[in-house]
Amino acid sequence: MTADVLPNVRVRCHELAPRVGDLRSNLAMIDEAIARASAADVDLLVLPELATSGYYLRDAEEVHSVAMTAHDPAFARWSAAAGKMAVVVGFAESDGETIYNSAAVVNGGGVLTVYRKTHLWGVEHESFTPGSAPPPVVDTAFGRLGILICYDMEFPELPRMLALQGADIIAVPTNWPPVPRPNGEHPPEVIQAMASARSSRVAIACCDRSGVERGNDWTRGSTVIGADGWPAGERVSDDCIDAKIAIDRDRRISDYNDALGDRRPQLYRL
Amino acid sequence: MTADVLPNVRVRCHELAPRVGDLRSNLAMIDEAIARASAADVDLLVLPELATSGYYLRDAEEVHSVAMTAHDPAFARWSAAAGKMAVVVGFAESDGETIYNSAAVVNGGGVLTVYRKTHLWGVEHESFTPGSAPPPVVDTAFGRLGILICYDMEFPELPRMLALQGADIIAVPTNWPPVPRPNGEHPPEVIQAMASARSSRVAIACCDRSGVERGNDWTRGSTVIGADGWPAGERVSDDCIDAKIAIDRDRRISDYNDALGDRRPQLYRL
Repeated sequence: MTADVLPNVRVRCHELAPRVGDLRSNLAMIDEAIARASAADVDLLVLPELATSGYYLRDAEEVHSVAMTAHDPAFARWSAAAGKMAVVVGFAESDGETIYNSAAVVNGGGVLTVYRKTHLWGVEHESFTPGSAPPPVVDTAFGRLGILICYDMEFPELPRMLALQGADIIAVPTNWPPVPRPNGEHPPEVIQAMASARSSRVAIACCDRSGVERGNDWTRGSTVIGADGWPAGERVSDDCIDAKIAIDRDRRISDYNDALGDRRPQLYRL
Repeated sequence: MTADVLPNVRVRCHELAPRVGDLRSNLAMIDEAIARASAADVDLLVLPELATSGYYLRDAEEVHSVAMTAHDPAFARWSAAAGKMAVVVGFAESDGETIYNSAAVVNGGGVLTVYRKTHLWGVEHESFTPGSAPPPVVDTAFGRLGILICYDMEFPELPRMLALQGADIIAVPTNWPPVPRPNGEHPPEVIQAMASARSSRVAIACCDRSGVERGNDWTRGSTVIGADGWPAGERVSDDCIDAKIAIDRDRRISDYNDALGDRRPQLYRL
């Protein structure tokens, strides 16, 4: 173990099944998930996109009824419960009349950051305003954590950018509707995570949904990809995927090559 | 079929086994591959990286002994034989004393472009100078063709850039040394091709090597990925992978989303 290598990080993706539109019930479910993760000595708990609200919200009125700010007492409660653990949770965020599809990073120090999804999927535009700030990288007890939300990750620019900004792990709260795939293949979003992880030597943890919501199923494709690009997670219970991730800030991939250092940005037109 | 959709393109990746350092033999082998592809009505023939020279060249002297320019009579012969077909072939290119790891696109119109690999792998730096120009997109009889060489493709910026420049298919001559992978997984380079294809809705055809060269084996991972991100190739003989690719310039991926149009480049720091 060199000085560049931090100890193994225990990562958990907890596939919650929020009750759509039932904020109180969902906040209690998140309390419970944090308590379980804390008892299991998890370092990074990733929860789904819009875990507080559910995804298939009926109309603007229902969206507003479940929206909250990062000053909501729930976040203070989660901070107290998290301690050293970093918790990434998706929520419908209100800022006056504007609603964002957001994710907060919470630990014992409070709410470290709130990221507002910048690439909206499908009819999300009808309920949410896209964020205007790029995704963040924040320092946590285990290392540097980057945040994306669901469809964001399908833009290879974004995981690359977070790796260039020093992210050790990228957490991705998601709500993946099932899509067809050939037999034996991973869900396509997992393939994108694998490729992004390998090309930048950065770990990626995606937390999908469980349950059925207003008749809509989910891929349940939660995955933790190591910096080598291979899935490292294990389903330890019906709803939890756990992994130990060795953080390695050395991006070298051979005696002669470096995944980030070999870039030639002056040639790229993006 | 809408006006945006061109007819199916017949793509072939022919995994050659050049004799390292034996230029004359390798040029004849390429003649034969072009003749076979022409007889099979192939529209795009992709041959490996450094097909004219082999990969594990011993020293500078051997590299120089096999280097050639795009004015070599072999290219005129290949042009005459190609007709409407586009042929992508990797070769050691000399420019005075400077040697590049290059790929040419040849059809009946001549040598359409020569691309000099910009991201060199391993000890290639000892024999080759990296190119200073970004990879090109050229018009062919079937559509717009982008070119990358091997390790280039592992930089997600590059297939993205070629898609943004209107590439319908990206051809990637490669020499993939075998690397370990978990059971049931594609070679990691194939996963990167799948992810790049899907995220930009662009087809990608990678042609690997066959044979054993100075004791070194190859992945033989040649693959043709459709714009939907799934492998579309079929091994039709020991050394040829064929696919029919439907070109679709519509990058929409849902009623609300567009793989390229949804980008927010003002947020990207690359």
